[in-house]
Amino acid sequence: MSTAAPRPQHDAITDVRGIQVGHFTDPRRPTGCSVVLASNPEGQGAAGGVDVRGAAPGTRETDLLDPANLVDQVHAVLLSGGSAWGLEAAGGVMRWLEEHGRGLAVGSDPGQCVPIVPAAVLFDLHVGDARIRPDTSAGYAACAAARGEPPAQGNVGAGAGATVGKLFGMAHAMKSGIGSASVRVGDVTVGALVAVNALGDVVDPESGALVAGARSDDGRTLRGSTQAALAGVAPLSILAGSNTTIGVIATDAPLSKARAQRLAGAGHDGLARAIHPVHTLSDGDTLFALATGHAPALDFNVLCIMASTAVARACANAARAAQGMRISALWLPSVADLNPQEAR
Amino acid sequence: MSTAAPRPQHDAITDVRGIQVGHFTDPRRPTGCSVVLASNPEGQGAAGGVDVRGAAPGTRETDLLDPANLVDQVHAVLLSGGSAWGLEAAGGVMRWLEEHGRGLAVGSDPGQCVPIVPAAVLFDLHVGDARIRPDTSAGYAACAAARGEPPAQGNVGAGAGATVGKLFGMAHAMKSGIGSASVRVGDVTVGALVAVNALGDVVDPESGALVAGARSDDGRTLRGSTQAALAGVAPLSILAGSNTTIGVIATDAPLSKARAQRLAGAGHDGLARAIHPVHTLSDGDTLFALATGHAPALDFNVLCIMASTAVARACANAARAAQGMRISALWLPSVADLNPQEAR
Repeated sequence: MSTAAPRPQHDAITDVRGIQVGHFTDPRRPTGCSVVLASNPEGQGAAGGVDVRGAAPGTRETDLLDPANLVDQVHAVLLSGGSAWGLEAAGGVMRWLEEHGRGLAVGSDPGQCVPIVPAAVLFDLHVGDARIRPDTSAGYAACAAARGEPPAQGNVGAGAGATVGKLFGMAHAMKSGIGSASVRVGDVTVGALVAVNALGDVVDPESGALVAGARSDDGRTLRGSTQAALAGVAPLSILAGSNTTIGVIATDAPLSKARAQRLAGAGHDGLARAIHPVHTLSDGDTLFALATGHAPALDFNVLCIMASTAVARACANAARAAQGMRISALWLPSVADLNPQEAR
Repeated sequence: MSTAAPRPQHDAITDVRGIQVGHFTDPRRPTGCSVVLASNPEGQGAAGGVDVRGAAPGTRETDLLDPANLVDQVHAVLLSGGSAWGLEAAGGVMRWLEEHGRGLAVGSDPGQCVPIVPAAVLFDLHVGDARIRPDTSAGYAACAAARGEPPAQGNVGAGAGATVGKLFGMAHAMKSGIGSASVRVGDVTVGALVAVNALGDVVDPESGALVAGARSDDGRTLRGSTQAALAGVAPLSILAGSNTTIGVIATDAPLSKARAQRLAGAGHDGLARAIHPVHTLSDGDTLFALATGHAPALDFNVLCIMASTAVARACANAARAAQGMRISALWLPSVADLNPQEAR
C-alpha cells in the first residue's frame, strides 16, 4: 500500500535495509574476512540469532545469542577465513565499531560501549601459506570498506580461499567463494551472504543439477559426491574440520531473538538443498540471522521460506562467481574454467 | 569380502539387521502408531540419538538421548498420531517390552527392567473424531504386530491420519502417510521410516518435482507452496503445531550416542530436500537414529549421506503410498487420485 517508489533489488543481502557489507581480501594469499554491519531504525544493533549445525565449528559470541540470554543487540557479524586464528579479526571489528560510537552502552560515559560481534570461521589454511590469516587489522579494514551497495562475490573476503568438493581429497576440489542473494515479499526483504567452503558439492537449488564439487579423475567433469559415495567410492580421510560453510541471513522485518534463531535454522534448509552433503563431521556449518526492524512484520513461515531460498541461491552464486587458481601443484578450477556457461 | 549370500534389500528400514517394525491402525478413525524395535547382537537395545528441529514438537525420553547423559540403550522408538495424547502409547510399548524381557536391567531380580522408549507424535486430530487417539493398548498392539519384514506404507500406523500441503489451509491439503526406504553400501544398511504430516509440500528428492502438497483453487493441481508464498500469497493461519513430520533412521553399523545424534541431524537434511518448506513454526519435526551394531563400521560421512538419502526417499514414498479420503466435507486426495502414474 506504500506510495513510495519501489526500492531497487540487486539479489544481494544489502537489499535489506540497515545492512552494510565490507570485505577484506588479503593480497598475500587467498584468505580474508567479511563483515555485515547491522543497525535498527534507532541506530542500535539488530536482533540476532545463530544455528550451528556442522560438527567442527569455530565461533565467537554464539552463547550470547541464546534466546535465554540477556543481550538483544548485534552490531556486526564477522565471517572469516583462517580457521580459529581468524576469530581474532572480530577484535578489529569491535574497535572500528567503538570508534564509530556503535555498541552496547555501558556505564555513564556515553562513549563507553561494548560492540557485540558474533563470528564464525572457515578453514582455508591449505590454500597457500598457512601462517597468513585474518587478524585484527583485517577485521578493521573490512569494516572500513563496508557499504550499502551489493558486495563483490567470489574470491573475496571470507570466500577468498574457499573450496568445495573435498570428499575424495583436495586433488579433486574446485574453487568456491562467497555469494549473496535476496528475496522480497511485499515490503520485506530477506538476504543472505554465504562463504561456501563445503566438503560437499554445490547443486543448483532449482534444478538439482551439480554446479561445482568433486571432480572425476580426469579433472574436467563432476563426479557427484553423493552418487559416488553411495556407489561405494570411499572418501579420502581429510583433516577434520578443514571445511565449513558460514553465512549471515538478514531481514528488515522485526524479529525477537528466539525468532532470529529459528530464521537461522531455516537457512540451514537452504544449505541442505544447495550443498550435498552438508553439515558433515568435517564441516562447521554456522548461520547467523539479523533482523533490523526497518520493514513491517511478515508471516514467520514466509520469512523462513525466503531465508532458505536466499541461502540456497547465495550458495550457487558463491560457486558461480569464483575464479580458479593454482597454488603450487594444486589446481583449483572454478565453474568458469570447467563449464563457462554456468558461471556468473 | 563376505562369502555369505547377499541379504535381500526391500528399500525399507527392516533391511537393517536388528530392526522390526509394527503398526497399529485405529479402525475407528484415521490415526494410529508405529513402533520400531531395535536390538544389538547381545539382544540388548541399540545406541540412540535424536534431533528435534521443528518448532512445535511433542516428545518423550529425548533428554535421555543427550550424549552427555547416561543410558546408552534404546529398546524401541514410538511414532504416534494423536498429538500429545499419543505419547501415552509409549506406555504400552514399555509393557510389551517388559513382558518380553527387553529393557534396561535394574535391581537384582533378572526380570526387573525399564524399557527405554523415546517417542514423538504428530497432530492428526483434525482428521475425524479428535477424541479417538492412540493409547496404551495401541502401543502394545503395534509391538505385537512387529516383524522383520518390510512394513506397510501409506495410511497405516502413525501415518494413518497424516496430511501435507497445509500452508494455505486444510481445504487445500492432500493425504500423506508413512513411508520407508533404505540404502546399502558394502555390508552396511541405513534405513528410514518417516510419517509425513508436514505443513509444506513433498517433492521428489531426485528431480525436485512436486509430488504432493497444497492444491490450487480448482483442487486438481499442485500450487507449489514455496513459489506461491514467494509470489505473495498469504498463508492461512492454522493452529500452531497442527503438523509435524516424525521418523526413525536405523543403521546396522555401530555408533556412539554422540554419532547417533549426528546421524539424526543428517536425516533432517533429507527432510529439507523432500519437504518444502520444512521445520516451520507449525511443525514439530523430530528424527531419531538407532545403531544396532550388527554390521561393521563405515565412514561416518558416508553413513550421513545414506541417512539423508533414505529419509528423503522415505518421504516421497510416504506421499506416493497414501490413499485419498473424505472426512465429512473435507476431501483429502492422494497422489493416486490426482496423478496416478506418480503413485506407488
